Amino acid sequence: VAELSEAAIRQRLDDWPVARLATIAPDGRPHQVPIVFARAGAALWSPIDGKAKSGGELARVRNVRAHPEVSLLLDAYDEDWTRLWWIRLDATARVVQPSRHGRAPTPVGQATPSGDAAFEAALLALRSKYPQYRTVPLLEGQPTLLAFTWSHVRSWHAA
Amino acid sequence: VAELSEAAIRQRLDDWPVARLATIAPDGRPHQVPIVFARAGAALWSPIDGKAKSGGELARVRNVRAHPEVSLLLDAYDEDWTRLWWIRLDATARVVQPSRHGRAPTPVGQATPSGDAAFEAALLALRSKYPQYRTVPLLEGQPTLLAFTWSHVRSWHAA
Repeated sequence: VAELSEAAIRQRLDDWPVARLATIAPDGRPHQVPIVFARAGAALWSPIDGKAKSGGELARVRNVRAHPEVSLLLDAYDEDWTRLWWIRLDATARVVQPSRHGRAPTPVGQATPSGDAAFEAALLALRSKYPQYRTVPLLEGQPTLLAFTWSHVRSWHAA
Repeated sequence: VAELSEAAIRQRLDDWPVARLATIAPDGRPHQVPIVFARAGAALWSPIDGKAKSGGELARVRNVRAHPEVSLLLDAYDEDWTRLWWIRLDATARVVQPSRHGRAPTPVGQATPSGDAAFEAALLALRSKYPQYRTVPLLEGQPTLLAFTWSHVRSWHAA
């Protein structure tokens, strides 16, 4: 089994533009969706569109609340099969709600709460990684984020 | 919600080169892996490397035997977010074993059993879709295949 180096994994967790998130649906089936994400601190962060959905909360958010254990897959398809690779994270997902983050400025002389600091760092990382957010309004206002921390990494690349 | 047309879905199920398969692992977590696949008849077919693995059967095969309900995701990432799309199939997976398919030629005048015919059509579809199999020996001999039929299709594309 050919695993990727730790450096290669780290770089792709920083740079790769897309992952596929698998969660468990209420009926016990697996559910998948492609996501964008950025690394900040020890977590990967993915934004949820803040607009109200006709069906209520997005399935991935509902699923994660009930079953926080998820899978994240990064991979590249290439017609040259000697260039194939994937990285799979067994991760725990957390829904980070905008309502927890007030709009009031942090009082002078008071340390920024670590939760807010992590949230702001995540937004910064997402805006920095994806220039698309300059024109896509998703990250304006107070978006909901999913935060993923992982316990296990598996990787593979073609020999 | 912008869904893809039936024609667009059909074409991508025929032509798109990669899908992500999510299964349920024995511990209840979701598990993902990128797969190649080809459509033949009413199913999508994906080959399993026939070589013995040090860890026994591949996780996806073990998982599917215990939990046949899976998710298949086709999607394209593009830096131009107006070009994003995905197709998600709620599918049932079946492990089709080479041992069921004898090497003896079909007796003259006897109809090919439908199971064998479907298996051969699947191999043909895989070889036709992926010229890589001319040099990758995976489909030589009697490979194990996963056959996916689906009950529900969801799709989305950026407006």
